[in-house]
Amino acid sequence: MKSLVTIGGGTGQFTLLSGLKKYPVRLTSIVSMADDGGSTGMLRDELGVLPPGDVRQCLVALSEADGIMRDLFNYRYDNGGLKGHNFGNIFLSSLEKITGSFEEAVRVAGLVLAIRGEVMPVTPAKVTLVCGKEKVLQGQYAIEQARIEPERASIRLEPESYANPKAVAAIESADCIVLGTGNLYCSIIPMLLVRGIPEALGRSGAKVVYYCNLMTKAGHYAGFNVLDFVGEIERYIGKGRVDFVTYNNHLPEKELVERYALEGEFPVAVGDIEEEFADVSFRPLPADLVSRASFVRKEGDPIKRSLIRHNPDALAALIIQNCLGGL
Amino acid sequence: MKSLVTIGGGTGQFTLLSGLKKYPVRLTSIVSMADDGGSTGMLRDELGVLPPGDVRQCLVALSEADGIMRDLFNYRYDNGGLKGHNFGNIFLSSLEKITGSFEEAVRVAGLVLAIRGEVMPVTPAKVTLVCGKEKVLQGQYAIEQARIEPERASIRLEPESYANPKAVAAIESADCIVLGTGNLYCSIIPMLLVRGIPEALGRSGAKVVYYCNLMTKAGHYAGFNVLDFVGEIERYIGKGRVDFVTYNNHLPEKELVERYALEGEFPVAVGDIEEEFADVSFRPLPADLVSRASFVRKEGDPIKRSLIRHNPDALAALIIQNCLGGL
Repeated sequence: MKSLVTIGGGTGQFTLLSGLKKYPVRLTSIVSMADDGGSTGMLRDELGVLPPGDVRQCLVALSEADGIMRDLFNYRYDNGGLKGHNFGNIFLSSLEKITGSFEEAVRVAGLVLAIRGEVMPVTPAKVTLVCGKEKVLQGQYAIEQARIEPERASIRLEPESYANPKAVAAIESADCIVLGTGNLYCSIIPMLLVRGIPEALGRSGAKVVYYCNLMTKAGHYAGFNVLDFVGEIERYIGKGRVDFVTYNNHLPEKELVERYALEGEFPVAVGDIEEEFADVSFRPLPADLVSRASFVRKEGDPIKRSLIRHNPDALAALIIQNCLGGL
Repeated sequence: MKSLVTIGGGTGQFTLLSGLKKYPVRLTSIVSMADDGGSTGMLRDELGVLPPGDVRQCLVALSEADGIMRDLFNYRYDNGGLKGHNFGNIFLSSLEKITGSFEEAVRVAGLVLAIRGEVMPVTPAKVTLVCGKEKVLQGQYAIEQARIEPERASIRLEPESYANPKAVAAIESADCIVLGTGNLYCSIIPMLLVRGIPEALGRSGAKVVYYCNLMTKAGHYAGFNVLDFVGEIERYIGKGRVDFVTYNNHLPEKELVERYALEGEFPVAVGDIEEEFADVSFRPLPADLVSRASFVRKEGDPIKRSLIRHNPDALAALIIQNCLGGL
């Protein structure tokens, strides 16, 4: 069976894995450890644990347990002392406290959720995302809320952290690696800042797919087109390392686009990739990737969530058909 | 396979079930729904759920999952917003919120914990334990802390509640029913106050075993001997309905007894059951039932001290050998 590794965090990974798990591939999801917002942030502060939120989303995506267990892991409390907490996060953090190991917690949660594939944190270290030289911002959540354009190149993890050896091994032996999607500077690049991850990508014979964002983000990657995203990624993993780029070439619903525009977010432009004179080192994979399903912001969720989402099935089909050299 | 039903709550059930589950019997644990202390009380107040604490203890006792899952269900948070909460209680309450049914929550939790047997709430209703006529005390926790001797006969559930039909069916078809142990007025009698439970006990052909307390309790059943306990139970289920009574006939460690004495709690005296002239309607089952394992008090008690507890194996062996008419 071909081995497919995904690298990312949050909703982007959830969508990607939800689509990919329907194919007969060996899936490994390597997950960001920089999250510190919402329920995850409270648990980090209160219990001193590693951030469970992104891992939880990946576990739920890969779960083949019945719907109740998946609903339970995503359940969010809207009142009382538990307000703002999320059950799955509490589950993972409690297991970490009991076993003394986040990796073991993820393993046990994977059994309970009957997951297909494997989920692993990108690093076993407690890291904080930091941005800026003069005015220093600390924490993924704070950085996500701020305008970081002038200093986004200074984004870094503190303390410097080293990759989970299992994640390195998975990258090295993969047939295909999918990178993305999510906030470029808060979710994706932080994974590439973990020592050993870009190096493993360099050594790996795997094809690398970059799964590009649907929308730009004011103050972070305003006005970016597909090539701009790829350019930023390759600053961290080496020029020419991206073999395929999936991107959307259909506009989302007008009403949704207008709503996003009010917040300074616009559909990512294709740029000149498809022009005849384009000279790109990757194979472009344009497709209609916008989901027609409607997404609702959950009540009591303190974090704002995007509503224009990828279609998991279209995305997975595009990757499987083009990047894996046949199943 | 013979069918054995237990009726009780809290630690008493945990001990009993931990011993009984080693035998090839069909186990059904019918659990009190009057608890409102600690983590359970907070969840009742904040989420409007049924009390999960006693059910959780029974599920853990019957679990055949690996140690981590059992530890997880008993895990208690000692700081942050989760302080005082218990993971297993949160698990059950969250499942109840998602499924809309406490019974379904108990079923799913039973699957996750791989339990042997079945656990069922005595009633699906939200009930409150009430005591007193002039000075009315509300809630199991409040009543447990108070001196209720003068008005203990007035103990009642509000609103009047009806038995879970599955619990009634289990009682009616049982071969043996074990009642106890725990706070007589706060845990055991409240089960017998649920409409339909004493009636089912009356109709059932099962042998009824009363599993008597090890220690008296000041302000509740101070000075009670074994016969006094049985007398109180039979006030609710009918004179002569108890077929067997297990009780301890060995003193716990002197140091422990002295420590309990400071709180007005003393080993339950045998009374004149064993005298030649005794005329009791049940078969007495005296044995050395005191555990030699050391127990540490939980519930945020900063002082580590041993507790006087039943020995689950001795208790189960006594019941299985004497009350089930052979396996």
